[in-house]
Amino acid sequence: MDFSSKLLENAVNEVSRLPGIGKRTALRLVLHLLKQPIEHTGFLSEALLHLRNDVKACEKCHNISDTIICEICNNPNRNPEIVCVVEDIRDVMAIENTSQFKGLYHVLGGKISPIEGIGPHNLQIESLVEKVSKGGIKELIFALSSTMEGDTTNFYIFKQIEKFEIITSTIARGISVGDELEYADEITLGRSIVNRIPFEQSIKG
Amino acid sequence: MDFSSKLLENAVNEVSRLPGIGKRTALRLVLHLLKQPIEHTGFLSEALLHLRNDVKACEKCHNISDTIICEICNNPNRNPEIVCVVEDIRDVMAIENTSQFKGLYHVLGGKISPIEGIGPHNLQIESLVEKVSKGGIKELIFALSSTMEGDTTNFYIFKQIEKFEIITSTIARGISVGDELEYADEITLGRSIVNRIPFEQSIKG
Repeated sequence: MDFSSKLLENAVNEVSRLPGIGKRTALRLVLHLLKQPIEHTGFLSEALLHLRNDVKACEKCHNISDTIICEICNNPNRNPEIVCVVEDIRDVMAIENTSQFKGLYHVLGGKISPIEGIGPHNLQIESLVEKVSKGGIKELIFALSSTMEGDTTNFYIFKQIEKFEIITSTIARGISVGDELEYADEITLGRSIVNRIPFEQSIKG
Repeated sequence: MDFSSKLLENAVNEVSRLPGIGKRTALRLVLHLLKQPIEHTGFLSEALLHLRNDVKACEKCHNISDTIICEICNNPNRNPEIVCVVEDIRDVMAIENTSQFKGLYHVLGGKISPIEGIGPHNLQIESLVEKVSKGGIKELIFALSSTMEGDTTNFYIFKQIEKFEIITSTIARGISVGDELEYADEITLGRSIVNRIPFEQSIKG
């Protein structure tokens, strides 16, 4: 692209470094900012800088937080005996949105993936094992994605905490609520039959 | 969405004000920045602020520019007798990329659109008419998009400069180079037959 302005070129280059944003989209976004009041760009830059400089990872669960200990870990109404293990802070947000879980979280920061060069030591696994070893946790719920990497990570953690007397569970896989059976993939449908639940339980939720 | 961090929420809100970026995409972009070195966010914010605060519109052609008069208007190798009228600075970039035009530009900043509340006085039409009235321009090329608004704008400008002795032209509409005739829409195909050009001319370009 042939820019008549170095300032514009620079801004487009920086924006297009974001994932999934090409040069054309970056140009569209930047030109939009130019048409908006000058404060909009100020607010945007400030919010990004402020976040990048000041945001913390909760010391207990490694969730994103404005404080050293996050709101969830600090909440006395939550049950610290049940800990849900997730990959990412986006998973925390997704589960929180359901309002169905009242325990605490442990954010691993990813899953074991030799292809991407992510080993157990790049993740918050050691701190999880330590947390479990200290006692006080009754149940660990694995809520990782059901891919090979997710299963590997689950198994790796499971092997390390086996010796402690706690319940381990994994979130249910099955047909989505509202979905037609005929369009479900066989593995999911198969699992949903094997892991069927008492009918009385299903009408409660 | 349920954010555990006000800083994150604020950043996502600001990013999602950009056109075509929803909350989920904004979250993805912001979390990406968090994983990158802190300088990336610095460079991005700085580039946007720098652009918004310091970029100018060229006093002659209203193209985006770092200086009072833009590089194109300042270039002694360009022909000031031919002026191409475009809607937007993106059109300038598109035409510049072809390397086929050696005249100057005049950026209107949009087209007349009563639905969007854009009248002739919101555009750089007066300055164009003044430029033409001063003499020195031999040809005006209309390169607006061929929509109702584009045609209206062309006609409005044409009526005001009719009295001056200059050539007015419009960019050729026709079948794209490499396109199959059978897939072309009838209006374009019709126009390309009516406005056919001598064969000798077509093999030159």
